[in-house]
Amino acid sequence: MERLGVIGGMGPEATSYFYDQVIAHTAAERDQDHIDMVVLSHASMPDRTRAILTGETGPLLDAMRADTRALEALGCANIAIPCNTSHYFYDTIQSFTSVPIIHMPREAVLEAVRGRGARRVGIMGTDGTVRAGVYARECEALGAEAVTPSPERQADVMSLIYDDVKAGREADLSKFGRVVDELAERGCDAVILACTELSVVKRNHGAGDICLDAMDVLVRESIVRSGARYQALAAAGDISSR
Amino acid sequence: MERLGVIGGMGPEATSYFYDQVIAHTAAERDQDHIDMVVLSHASMPDRTRAILTGETGPLLDAMRADTRALEALGCANIAIPCNTSHYFYDTIQSFTSVPIIHMPREAVLEAVRGRGARRVGIMGTDGTVRAGVYARECEALGAEAVTPSPERQADVMSLIYDDVKAGREADLSKFGRVVDELAERGCDAVILACTELSVVKRNHGAGDICLDAMDVLVRESIVRSGARYQALAAAGDISSR
Repeated sequence: MERLGVIGGMGPEATSYFYDQVIAHTAAERDQDHIDMVVLSHASMPDRTRAILTGETGPLLDAMRADTRALEALGCANIAIPCNTSHYFYDTIQSFTSVPIIHMPREAVLEAVRGRGARRVGIMGTDGTVRAGVYARECEALGAEAVTPSPERQADVMSLIYDDVKAGREADLSKFGRVVDELAERGCDAVILACTELSVVKRNHGAGDICLDAMDVLVRESIVRSGARYQALAAAGDISSR
Repeated sequence: MERLGVIGGMGPEATSYFYDQVIAHTAAERDQDHIDMVVLSHASMPDRTRAILTGETGPLLDAMRADTRALEALGCANIAIPCNTSHYFYDTIQSFTSVPIIHMPREAVLEAVRGRGARRVGIMGTDGTVRAGVYARECEALGAEAVTPSPERQADVMSLIYDDVKAGREADLSKFGRVVDELAERGCDAVILACTELSVVKRNHGAGDICLDAMDVLVRESIVRSGARYQALAAAGDISSR
């Protein structure tokens, strides 16, 4: 088995959930059946959406460079970044290291389009993820269409992420429901939870069958590429092994 | 705030719970209010109880040396080890680095004896922790008495830890109850959950007021020493700030 590196802390609760899910989905009878991981919980990482929208990317990319190099020096064979917004900078971050970085949006869209046959894919993510077209690009590459929420519903998504989850408050589920309903009404046959804070909301409260959690796909890819055995769980909405 | 290093993966689920609890108990309004952490989830670490009972400590200590040095090189200001049994080797591990390692059993006993006024302290831990007297020494230093389970009940503790939690199975709570009852009948006024796998059982199923989870104390010390603000939670049995 190979060591997995994680650039995390964006936010911390999402990374904690990711770590928990990697463990839960690894078929294991004892400690040593699990994969070795190095989790950099880098909570002080500059805000990703802010960097995209202002163009002030220097401090963020400096931190990403230091983290990728630390993980490489520690012998990690693959790197996971449980933060969708960060994948706007994927090519740059990958250029810092020869260690392969798992591309969460790419894998999630692959699962939605090839795995589930979706043609119109709703995207629930931060303003950074949505405006930068992180998911739209991946959908287009597979001949599918990305649908983003209306401005009012996008404001609901941002409020859920920043005012609720990141602030440590109870999630207001009416915001979540309004966004999913709108995307379904607009003909989406899948809705990707494209922000790991929304994965936290799904963990605590569940989500409809139309939803596909990008983090779940990252969990599976992280386990499989590290050489451990992935096990699907009985939980609703859990993705299967490939 | 200062960066916290964690030598974990012993077992992985316990470390995941530790990480989750550090986040939950940190007073935070945004990602950047949390502490930066480096979590080495070292699942392949040789079994600690086995090393103590067989005396084959070389591979374990080599791995501990590599981990402490990696955390030091990454600028960690304190190190936490969410594995009680490992603290048998505390002095040796501390000798590998100038970075202070938080002594979980010492802090837990301090909380039980000074914080709660306990005089007879029951210890629920692995055979390694119990036979090596990891907790007995700390109790003695504070003028309290450590009480360990009878051989039958100690077998229950080991089965809970290895056959249930580490094997990813549902915990058989009758084992847990039998041990706590015996220790209470023998006059203990506190029972320390001195194995982080038992913390996982407590998380999932709760534990009586007599129980004090050593990991809860490690969580508090980790947050406070890193310069963040600790918040007690409403959950039953949660420890208060000092």
